[in-house]
Amino acid sequence: MNNSTFTLEMKVRDYECDMQGVVNNAIYQNYLEHTRHEALLSLGESFNDWTEKKIFPMVAKAEIEYKTPLKSGDKFNSELFIERNGARYLFHQKIFRKNDNKLCINAIIHIIVVQNGKLTRGDEFAKVLSPFIHDKD
Amino acid sequence: MNNSTFTLEMKVRDYECDMQGVVNNAIYQNYLEHTRHEALLSLGESFNDWTEKKIFPMVAKAEIEYKTPLKSGDKFNSELFIERNGARYLFHQKIFRKNDNKLCINAIIHIIVVQNGKLTRGDEFAKVLSPFIHDKD
Amino acid sequence: MNNSTFTLEMKVRDYECDMQGVVNNAIYQNYLEHTRHEALLSLGESFNDWTEKKIFPMVAKAEIEYKTPLKSGDKFNSELFIERNGARYLFHQKIFRKNDNKLCINAIIHIIVVQNGKLTRGDEFAKVLSPFIHDKD
Amino acid sequence: MNNSTFTLEMKVRDYECDMQGVVNNAIYQNYLEHTRHEALLSLGESFNDWTEKKIFPMVAKAEIEYKTPLKSGDKFNSELFIERNGARYLFHQKIFRKNDNKLCINAIIHIIVVQNGKLTRGDEFAKVLSPFIHDKD
Repeated sequence: MNNSTFTLEMKVRDYECDMQGVVNNAIYQNYLEHTRHEALLSLGESFNDWTEKKIFPMVAKAEIEYKTPLKSGDKFNSELFIERNGARYLFHQKIFRKNDNKLCINAIIHIIVVQNGKLTRGDEFAKVLSPFIHDKD
Repeated sequence: MNNSTFTLEMKVRDYECDMQGVVNNAIYQNYLEHTRHEALLSLGESFNDWTEKKIFPMVAKAEIEYKTPLKSGDKFNSELFIERNGARYLFHQKIFRKNDNKLCINAIIHIIVVQNGKLTRGDEFAKVLSPFIHDKD
Repeated sequence: MNNSTFTLEMKVRDYECDMQGVVNNAIYQNYLEHTRHEALLSLGESFNDWTEKKIFPMVAKAEIEYKTPLKSGDKFNSELFIERNGARYLFHQKIFRKNDNKLCINAIIHIIVVQNGKLTRGDEFAKVLSPFIHDKD
Repeated sequence: MNNSTFTLEMKVRDYECDMQGVVNNAIYQNYLEHTRHEALLSLGESFNDWTEKKIFPMVAKAEIEYKTPLKSGDKFNSELFIERNGARYLFHQKIFRKNDNKLCINAIIHIIVVQNGKLTRGDEFAKVLSPFIHDKD
């Protein structure tokens, strides 16, 4: 089960498109966040459970490359796997348009884990997410 | 096929919830719009096709009753049927929480059809949507 | 000070516009909510203070007439006054485009006040908002 | 006028905050986009004018560091200057909380200019934005 990739199929909704007729740039962060939360749910945990345990996974940095814009009605696959770098969890997230498998978004989202207001190594977080954590070469 | 109801299953995404921990009131209008556009798609037409034909279905009025708030992760069914009242199309839209079938949203969205900047009776619109148009008693 | 109207000047942001090149219908509810919260702030209270006191003003119903669409860059005035109807507070909210004072939105938002999970008359709420509560004729 | 920085003062709206009680990560991209469009407007051009001229400035990459979360009601300054790197315009954008001048967001947004479907050097774009373009050391 380790080294697996989580995939979520989604579809563009018209209200997510802007005046240019394509999905607004900010909306992709919604897609990426939703994919992370669904990946956690697929492992039996919810983002809210963590919040209630006072363990807060937080985005420290987002690096997002916009490759091909999605349009009204496009279906897409949103994929992720995780690389651990000490106390930093690098979520490698890609979005592919479904009809031609074209890469739309190529992102690395840096997650840190804060507990009682302090940065931690996030070992409990790592344990739960281990199926999606890939070893570095 | 006439007098049928269109149903779309959806699921709350965490970014749609606000500080109160429930889906923000404005987001339900996103759900309702998306349901209308998917109903149209289910009949082989897209909202954008209409825009290109210079036929603009527009919301003239929204009446939305908020009955039970949806929360993070809730699945729900978004249903609609249409009642025609002259040049006004009344979209009767309801949202039910899936796990207990509780009514969350009870809405009537008034749609008018504008062509070349003028209000029309929307007969072409009515023809396409006829499967979901219910006769008045 | 009684019988006064609260007014907030705002400006359309491009990301609020959709493929039709106008402000998306759901966004007006954001404007209306923000106006209500700023009206409360103008009286020295915040919506969050209420939440912490476990007094929850909630939208029970929204009736929104869409009169003229706002476009990219439009400035507008968002106005409100309140009419009390027993345990229901009717927020009469209008949005006027600034350059020609044209009516864009004409809305009545029904607010109820829930405390300890029960509907209340909201007398504390009424006291704070009294400057904006208009007597019925 | 060259080497100047554009600053826009804004305020967090409650509907922009999520279940964690802070501004949702995606919303900062709305703030950053709005700041870029207002910077253009301050120079007498609108983003829509460019679209009509078939000149499309597009986000190719966003690098966003999340330093301090903004909360309900926080006022903030959103600043930008531009560094040109051949055909790529690097918008250096920072968001500072107003009450203590704390850095909230530190971002570099890479803009490219597409004309007739082809990447261009964007010289017309550069000319208009020149007041905010800083020389590299």
